[in-house]
Amino acid sequence: MTTVPTIAAANFDLDSPELGNRLHAFVSELYPVCSSITGNGLREIIRRIGQRIPLQIHEVPTGTQVFDWTVPREWNIRDAFVRNSRGEKIIDLKNSNLHVVNYSVPVNAKLSFQELKQHLHALPERPDWIPYRTSYYRETWGFCLTQRQLDSLAEDEYEVVIDSSLEDGSLTYAECLVPGASKEEILISCHACHPSLCNDNLSGLAVATFLAQALAATPHRYSYRFLFIPGTIGSITWLSRNENIVPLIRHGLVLACVGDSGAFSYKKSRRGNAEIDRATLHLLGFSGNPFNVRDFSPYGYDERQYCSPGFNLPVGCLNRTQHGKFPEYHTSADNLTFVTPEALAGTLRFCLDVFRVLENNLTYLNLNPKCEPQLGRRGLYRLMGGLPDAGTRELAMLWTLNLSDGLNSLLDIAERSSLRFDAILQATKDLEQAGLLVPSTPADSATTRR
Amino acid sequence: MTTVPTIAAANFDLDSPELGNRLHAFVSELYPVCSSITGNGLREIIRRIGQRIPLQIHEVPTGTQVFDWTVPREWNIRDAFVRNSRGEKIIDLKNSNLHVVNYSVPVNAKLSFQELKQHLHALPERPDWIPYRTSYYRETWGFCLTQRQLDSLAEDEYEVVIDSSLEDGSLTYAECLVPGASKEEILISCHACHPSLCNDNLSGLAVATFLAQALAATPHRYSYRFLFIPGTIGSITWLSRNENIVPLIRHGLVLACVGDSGAFSYKKSRRGNAEIDRATLHLLGFSGNPFNVRDFSPYGYDERQYCSPGFNLPVGCLNRTQHGKFPEYHTSADNLTFVTPEALAGTLRFCLDVFRVLENNLTYLNLNPKCEPQLGRRGLYRLMGGLPDAGTRELAMLWTLNLSDGLNSLLDIAERSSLRFDAILQATKDLEQAGLLVPSTPADSATTRR
Amino acid sequence: MTTVPTIAAANFDLDSPELGNRLHAFVSELYPVCSSITGNGLREIIRRIGQRIPLQIHEVPTGTQVFDWTVPREWNIRDAFVRNSRGEKIIDLKNSNLHVVNYSVPVNAKLSFQELKQHLHALPERPDWIPYRTSYYRETWGFCLTQRQLDSLAEDEYEVVIDSSLEDGSLTYAECLVPGASKEEILISCHACHPSLCNDNLSGLAVATFLAQALAATPHRYSYRFLFIPGTIGSITWLSRNENIVPLIRHGLVLACVGDSGAFSYKKSRRGNAEIDRATLHLLGFSGNPFNVRDFSPYGYDERQYCSPGFNLPVGCLNRTQHGKFPEYHTSADNLTFVTPEALAGTLRFCLDVFRVLENNLTYLNLNPKCEPQLGRRGLYRLMGGLPDAGTRELAMLWTLNLSDGLNSLLDIAERSSLRFDAILQATKDLEQAGLLVPSTPADSATTRR
Repeated sequence: MTTVPTIAAANFDLDSPELGNRLHAFVSELYPVCSSITGNGLREIIRRIGQRIPLQIHEVPTGTQVFDWTVPREWNIRDAFVRNSRGEKIIDLKNSNLHVVNYSVPVNAKLSFQELKQHLHALPERPDWIPYRTSYYRETWGFCLTQRQLDSLAEDEYEVVIDSSLEDGSLTYAECLVPGASKEEILISCHACHPSLCNDNLSGLAVATFLAQALAATPHRYSYRFLFIPGTIGSITWLSRNENIVPLIRHGLVLACVGDSGAFSYKKSRRGNAEIDRATLHLLGFSGNPFNVRDFSPYGYDERQYCSPGFNLPVGCLNRTQHGKFPEYHTSADNLTFVTPEALAGTLRFCLDVFRVLENNLTYLNLNPKCEPQLGRRGLYRLMGGLPDAGTRELAMLWTLNLSDGLNSLLDIAERSSLRFDAILQATKDLEQAGLLVPSTPADSATTRR
Repeated sequence: MTTVPTIAAANFDLDSPELGNRLHAFVSELYPVCSSITGNGLREIIRRIGQRIPLQIHEVPTGTQVFDWTVPREWNIRDAFVRNSRGEKIIDLKNSNLHVVNYSVPVNAKLSFQELKQHLHALPERPDWIPYRTSYYRETWGFCLTQRQLDSLAEDEYEVVIDSSLEDGSLTYAECLVPGASKEEILISCHACHPSLCNDNLSGLAVATFLAQALAATPHRYSYRFLFIPGTIGSITWLSRNENIVPLIRHGLVLACVGDSGAFSYKKSRRGNAEIDRATLHLLGFSGNPFNVRDFSPYGYDERQYCSPGFNLPVGCLNRTQHGKFPEYHTSADNLTFVTPEALAGTLRFCLDVFRVLENNLTYLNLNPKCEPQLGRRGLYRLMGGLPDAGTRELAMLWTLNLSDGLNSLLDIAERSSLRFDAILQATKDLEQAGLLVPSTPADSATTRR
Repeated sequence: MTTVPTIAAANFDLDSPELGNRLHAFVSELYPVCSSITGNGLREIIRRIGQRIPLQIHEVPTGTQVFDWTVPREWNIRDAFVRNSRGEKIIDLKNSNLHVVNYSVPVNAKLSFQELKQHLHALPERPDWIPYRTSYYRETWGFCLTQRQLDSLAEDEYEVVIDSSLEDGSLTYAECLVPGASKEEILISCHACHPSLCNDNLSGLAVATFLAQALAATPHRYSYRFLFIPGTIGSITWLSRNENIVPLIRHGLVLACVGDSGAFSYKKSRRGNAEIDRATLHLLGFSGNPFNVRDFSPYGYDERQYCSPGFNLPVGCLNRTQHGKFPEYHTSADNLTFVTPEALAGTLRFCLDVFRVLENNLTYLNLNPKCEPQLGRRGLYRLMGGLPDAGTRELAMLWTLNLSDGLNSLLDIAERSSLRFDAILQATKDLEQAGLLVPSTPADSATTRR
């Protein structure tokens, strides 16, 4: 693919309290769209993202072989309802995109309640919520509804209409490449196939879109590739069509469920100690807030594909409350009130913190490796002796000098010293300025050591 | 040595409640025999085992050099007693094989109580138990008796008779090889030299005998070599005469004290992370019962020899209550009531579980390493999407696919996934059946990787 | 440099209760001297050490380049006082060497209180203590005094006199080499630049002096090099002039703050698992007393220089209460009552324990690696069998035999067996005597393995 054009600097202030509201407004804008893994809903989601950042949009025809999978037929839905004998629409797609089982085949039939019931899904333990169900790979149809609705249904003749189509077409996905000084890439991947579920994953789409804008506004070393794809089949499709790009991916994050007000939860890459894993844990550890860390497992989001053994990419997954661990997950309660402006903005800022660590995690060489250099005469050290403690700034310089033997990156130094990466980075800049430190490797290849 | 003939299928059901009773009955059968590290008692133990499984019996002449040791003279005992001046036998070998210090030289003397006392051993803290004492490598004689007996002795002239012989002869041991598809071996070693001590180690002899029967009834990959040997000198003798077999030993277990009702205790091999260690710990961890694990130490049973630095074999030691940690240890209280049918049967079943892990711990190769294969169209994955959790069966398949990169054995996968080995094994079979997985190495060499 | 002559055996008994008193008396002798990083005070400290052990004394001219540093001008002070308008000396160097900021430039002036106050240093939270302050690398002057003195000063015209000189001269340091069988060295480094501070570091000077005496009295494998140097600039100077010796340094200890009655605190070398680190931790762990262990950090004493990345020497730092963690640190309260005879003697003995481990930490080869040798016939093992436990002596022999495969040093064996190094050492001697064990490497190179 060709590189997408550089994005103009985003017109927003990262520190502004307005940031969260803007993110939430974008979630609200996407909420009514009935997305799926193919079709016009997904295209509409992508179109709206494309109004904010330049996207390269791909259409992959039905039947295309993508590794072990085949791009499915395209699904589109226009209307779906159940009408009772009194002509009342008791279930209506217009009320909620979740009412129809995603990928339902067309139906137009009259059914008894007993027949209809086989196709109804509800949550007895959450009687006011509509579940989200899909049937991508088995031809069937169904409706989801609240338990209360279900309980109110009686024996009757029901008119069931699903005005959908399942036909040859194409699978749509989009990517946005924000170029950096290097061709080495950081991958950010978000699934865009879930309709009307705010945390899972309109939150990820909104944060990723704003991240692309923020990154376009400042120079950076890495190139950033944002993928807006249907879950599973989308990442498989992308990987199968971009094997030449895979070796350039240095770090990656799957963003999903990043808008609820819970603590951050990070799932490590399959490698378990990749730079993205360590950078994220370093920042979470210094955040002062509770957080959860999970080892990799092959169950979850698209990290399943990026971390499959044939790729084994250093891709982690950032969530707030982990999928399946909040009751609202995959129900109509994952709505606009479940995600908050503060949480969305906090995720955006945290991702930028992670990227700043990755961007700056170079390895330096102490040019005076034998004994300490005399920092005092360079104005880098207090001049009065005898005081009991060194300050953080001086400690950070001493650690950076001591460990900059060409074997330790700045993150290694931050980890061993238990100082913040930012303190080590500042010390590095001061020492480099004073001529005491030089990068030990060209920036482009610095991160390939591990 | 030549391979012993295949054993006909044992006529018992592993799940039957009768199994424990049969094991206990065999312990009872062996209990009256006065065994030692050489001599006719040991031969009688071996003869009775040989009535159940085919044995190759070896006689190694006195004086044979076995590494740093020399096969000792053969000891046999016919009678031993102490008679008081009233003609009463106050200590009599016929009442307990423990009454005479094992390997006592012949005596026929009249002694005062003061002279006799130098040769008496009792347990003041356990006044009703007779201790077990040996003197294999120093020529002496002695009697063991309860503290109550000792306390009842008064000044008198005692007739002391030990009708034993210590003469050139031979050391006896036996082995049973249950052949498998491969020449690679699992070694099971039991000491057979302790007379009338049920847990230490008639329990091990009984379980090993039944294991040989059970293994002969089903096909298996490994060959299983069972050793019935006198402690220390027996394993040294076997090793010195079988250095050519040593390289074939892939895993090994010393079975001792496996009949009491305590929790399992496992002592790791000197390697500390051998496959036998990991398999045993995996199963103990999932057993739902308490258990103890000890690091290797060079004090204990014959693992001392198998794990000597010149061999360093992957041989662990399975016990229930550890030797020396139960008061009955090496006393007459280690009797037929101290070992239970349930415990004996539980040990037998646990060993077969361990062997099943070892037998099946191969390394496979995912034939679709790039992204997940589509399990749904193969009927291996639920078809309704949106549910919050995968079941164990699906998780096991995902883990097996993800880690089957040729570097991880099924036990590695079980350990990393925290799933039971059996779940991973079932997933492997399903995936192999579906053509998604193949063994990455021929079964014969699969276990040599570590 | 040429080797200093062998020291005659010290005329004291390590086990005598007098040892502590002698150490404390030496601290008392050094206490009145006004030391600094150069000058006659430092020379006087060194002269007095030289009355006890033979020293090679070095004078390095001002202006000499030592790595990134330059040897500073020499500072000498004859008198310093502040006199009020009534002619009373309200601050007088004769009362405390801490009253003048070390390296103060000469002053002879009349100042108002407001002017004077800019040059006064006190400790508001410790109103009766005089702080210790230095200004080696910025030309200034100052007085230190108690907060109570400071509070008593009123507006007045003060006569301020500092009769010091800061002129070209030289930096003085001394070394004492106690030769051993090998040219490989253990380095003991003490800073000698602090005036009238007993724990920091007259304690280190006294212990090191006595260590040299004690070591001279007995044969040993390693050569021991004692450095009595000004802090920072002294170790930098020594390293810059002795790069040829650096490769001979196998282990090292910085001794500082070793006279207070607190628990031992050990700071690991930059390597983190050097033999000196492991030996010290082994002994602390078996000491039965509380202790602290810290990972290396590049802030502290001269280990900063020895552990700089260009040298990365295996040098740890032994303290009792860590610098900066006792309120008396760098104040007049670090006086003769703050250090105790018991603590000084305890440190001396502990250092000798550490050296004994290092001296004896060789690797041996079991000459009977296949199975255990028969210890019983060599009189090394009890002859009565059946007892439940082995004694420590037998366990130590079994462990030593089991792990003496040429890969494990005696310290490795002590660590893995959880037995005391001394027990393993005794077992080694017994086994070597019995012809069962030989050193696997010549003593000279045994320690280079790690």
